[in-house]
Amino acid sequence: MNGAETLVQTLLASGVRVCFANPGTSEMHFVAALDRHPEMRCVLCLFEGGVSGAADGYYRMSGQVAATLLHLAPGFGNAFANLHNARKAQSGVLNIMGDHADYHLRYEAPLKGDTVGISQAISHWTRVTSAPERVAPDAAEALQAARAKNGQIATLILPANMAWEEAEAAAIAPPPPALHRPSVEQVSAAARALREPGAILMVDGKALWTPKLGQLAKRVTKACGARLMMPFFAARFRRGAGAVKFERMAYRIEDNQALLKGASSLVLCGTARPAGFFAYPGKPSTPEDPDTRLIELCGRDMDIDWTLRALADVLGEAELGPEDFVAPDLPALPEGALTVTKVGEAVAALMPEDAVVVDEGVSASYFLAPSMRRARGHDALTITGGSIGFGLPCAVGAALARPERKVVVMEGDGSGMYTLQSLWTMAREGLDVTTVVFANRGYQILRDELAAVGVQDAGRNIARMFDVVEPTLDWVSLAKGHGVQAVQVRDMAGFNAAFAEAMGQRGPRLIEVVC
Amino acid sequence: MNGAETLVQTLLASGVRVCFANPGTSEMHFVAALDRHPEMRCVLCLFEGGVSGAADGYYRMSGQVAATLLHLAPGFGNAFANLHNARKAQSGVLNIMGDHADYHLRYEAPLKGDTVGISQAISHWTRVTSAPERVAPDAAEALQAARAKNGQIATLILPANMAWEEAEAAAIAPPPPALHRPSVEQVSAAARALREPGAILMVDGKALWTPKLGQLAKRVTKACGARLMMPFFAARFRRGAGAVKFERMAYRIEDNQALLKGASSLVLCGTARPAGFFAYPGKPSTPEDPDTRLIELCGRDMDIDWTLRALADVLGEAELGPEDFVAPDLPALPEGALTVTKVGEAVAALMPEDAVVVDEGVSASYFLAPSMRRARGHDALTITGGSIGFGLPCAVGAALARPERKVVVMEGDGSGMYTLQSLWTMAREGLDVTTVVFANRGYQILRDELAAVGVQDAGRNIARMFDVVEPTLDWVSLAKGHGVQAVQVRDMAGFNAAFAEAMGQRGPRLIEVVC
Repeated sequence: MNGAETLVQTLLASGVRVCFANPGTSEMHFVAALDRHPEMRCVLCLFEGGVSGAADGYYRMSGQVAATLLHLAPGFGNAFANLHNARKAQSGVLNIMGDHADYHLRYEAPLKGDTVGISQAISHWTRVTSAPERVAPDAAEALQAARAKNGQIATLILPANMAWEEAEAAAIAPPPPALHRPSVEQVSAAARALREPGAILMVDGKALWTPKLGQLAKRVTKACGARLMMPFFAARFRRGAGAVKFERMAYRIEDNQALLKGASSLVLCGTARPAGFFAYPGKPSTPEDPDTRLIELCGRDMDIDWTLRALADVLGEAELGPEDFVAPDLPALPEGALTVTKVGEAVAALMPEDAVVVDEGVSASYFLAPSMRRARGHDALTITGGSIGFGLPCAVGAALARPERKVVVMEGDGSGMYTLQSLWTMAREGLDVTTVVFANRGYQILRDELAAVGVQDAGRNIARMFDVVEPTLDWVSLAKGHGVQAVQVRDMAGFNAAFAEAMGQRGPRLIEVVC
Repeated sequence: MNGAETLVQTLLASGVRVCFANPGTSEMHFVAALDRHPEMRCVLCLFEGGVSGAADGYYRMSGQVAATLLHLAPGFGNAFANLHNARKAQSGVLNIMGDHADYHLRYEAPLKGDTVGISQAISHWTRVTSAPERVAPDAAEALQAARAKNGQIATLILPANMAWEEAEAAAIAPPPPALHRPSVEQVSAAARALREPGAILMVDGKALWTPKLGQLAKRVTKACGARLMMPFFAARFRRGAGAVKFERMAYRIEDNQALLKGASSLVLCGTARPAGFFAYPGKPSTPEDPDTRLIELCGRDMDIDWTLRALADVLGEAELGPEDFVAPDLPALPEGALTVTKVGEAVAALMPEDAVVVDEGVSASYFLAPSMRRARGHDALTITGGSIGFGLPCAVGAALARPERKVVVMEGDGSGMYTLQSLWTMAREGLDVTTVVFANRGYQILRDELAAVGVQDAGRNIARMFDVVEPTLDWVSLAKGHGVQAVQVRDMAGFNAAFAEAMGQRGPRLIEVVC
């Protein structure tokens, strides 16, 4: 067999079941090997941002690392933005990037590029395979790296001749190394701080969506009287009826300053220090009071589970009551003129139990969030890296990971345009995804930010850069072009009917909300 | 004034007139400064690959460096693929990449990324501005770098606080340093080789499209009896009636081996050593015979103009006759069943004098090329870096650079999907671009390459990765969604009518050719 065959066998033997692909010529032997193994599900995306975003969503909803198949340097470049979001989400992703045969790299072939450089700009782990018999062990190590430290970006660069030359045997990825843990002394110190009045425990990772770990965090903070918080951008969190109550951080630094005001200490468990999305003139970068004690107990890449249990051992666990969970509170179906807030109420009212909501509504999400908390219990996936173009690809991966669950994407019209090609993959794979596009005809978030910068009277150049008008986009046609059924709505009656219909059927739908 | 204002003033004072933009929050002060200067034309692209591809096309057709406005690391990532094509085209591009305020980078903000790393993976020149008073001189140096060495990728990373803090004065970009030249001895040696029977002079750069330089190359080779050749992938070359005759290299290594067979020497002037697009098992990386003498006389980044004149001084110049130029030979309008070859004949028959043809037809281009040589004189722009998704953005830039000329894009349906958002910019700016999409429902080039690798019976995974069917794309709806008028044709009568109509009117059109 050749190197490519050992690669595919290694991936399969190590538990990889899905390959999101946008292949090019240099990957032809890998493609041929994949073709010999129909047990690997190959999912074509028509743009590499769809590949990486899907791998991210797949990991978030399955906990499993998918492989990506990317074409050397520029193809990887196209995947970069959603690898960025995946990295910030701590999603494990295994990129297989083809490259020229190594002996060909001395010449200036058109597609020769800096594969290592661009990989290292985003990957935790990068390696160029240097011999055909190294393909299998390198792939095994790459997969191990992708699974390590709560999820990493690992990129194996595969020169074409490593794929086509003879190799001997597949390998199996070893389990990732044990996660680092804080010391007993650090746990004790954090526990002491959490017992003081006004303390906050901020948690991220699995505790936000696995009932057991989330309840543990709640029991601990209830026992010691601390507040339990979560970051604003989380890879996945449980929301709606039945969810453990976490206080969620906000987007704006001012709102977070208010939320953290007077905190005696801020203990971080599985999350980085909160910081402003951007810095602004005259505003601080970090939201906590200067005299709040910051305790970085457990990093994002450490053993969050063990740390919460260790805290419980010191602080004890209180019994939870109904007040610790979000109570059912479905909004009524709103009628009349359309507003984003009302759309949120309608979505909450109509969305089934256990849906997956991919949130890239950007400026719209601010108005949707209050209602979404009143919906039936669901998982919410947010744009962890802030790089727009995340929503549609992430929904592809989420729907593939959990075909039994309804996926709803809240999408901006500006953000959706970066990776609209994912609509086609939804159609191709028959994914049960309902996309709601909030068509405010521009980059509303930039309009808001401009005001924050103090510009009052925007002129022609700002209008030309912030407003997506002349012409407006026609999302119904865009969806149809990709093979996805779509409808445009302009009032609540229209939205309610379209969304109810989408919830009642399987398969991809798009609703363009003119707002 | 602030740093952003000095930046815009520096660009304007130094001759930059267009800014292709996809801004984000970190660029807000730059945006505000652009708004105060309506004399800078800001062109919004809804995806960053549209930005970089447009800057490439703009340079190819104007010789002028445009600025791009890109959002920190992931936004630059989206621009990467077409920066790759631009780099291989030697297009000068000045990227302004925003970043967080420098003091904010110590925190893990969602959008924090490796701006320097990703820039260095593609740019010839990268700098992070470290003080507000450095914005103007850094921008001037960046622009100088973009104009140096026959065109480079220069990236200035602008932390937000450098843009918003006070600065003093604008600057003006100094002229680029003089281009390197070969020594007189090197010219003499090359001239001696060119006098021998079977010698080839291979030229790239401006000689391929400026009549004066192209004719000089022809007169020199005619005087010494050498063949005059050009690379297959050229940033821009003159084609059709009246063009100086160059022998063009081919795509496949076998064809290039045949073309170069028996050459005594291969003298390179403004072009890199020819190499296969990819390496293949058992085939060579380079096409020339082992005993052909390779003479790298003048690199791509050196003084091609001077070198050709120096050769002329040694070798003399022959008078040119009609046989040295492509004779008018318009094909007849073909009828009946549609084939790609016939579409090429119809395009050649109907296209006006002095059009600009952006060629990303990929597998279709092979069948189009013979007819395109028979068209009225036009400029052809090819996908120099081989990274698909180049055509539509490049056409945007070309049309902006030369609004008086008709731009025709030959586009694959696979390749067009990477950057289809550029259709919207064509509509927004009213660009005179006719896009012909060859809808063969898949990645035909990969089907061809698979056969080259020896795979006969493709199975399900290959079909799922190479065929864009189930569903097929509907390019008429995709175009309509972006605001571009479109029609689908299935026979030559339909194509002839649609293309003739597009040639007779101004503004963006799309023709989906089902083939």
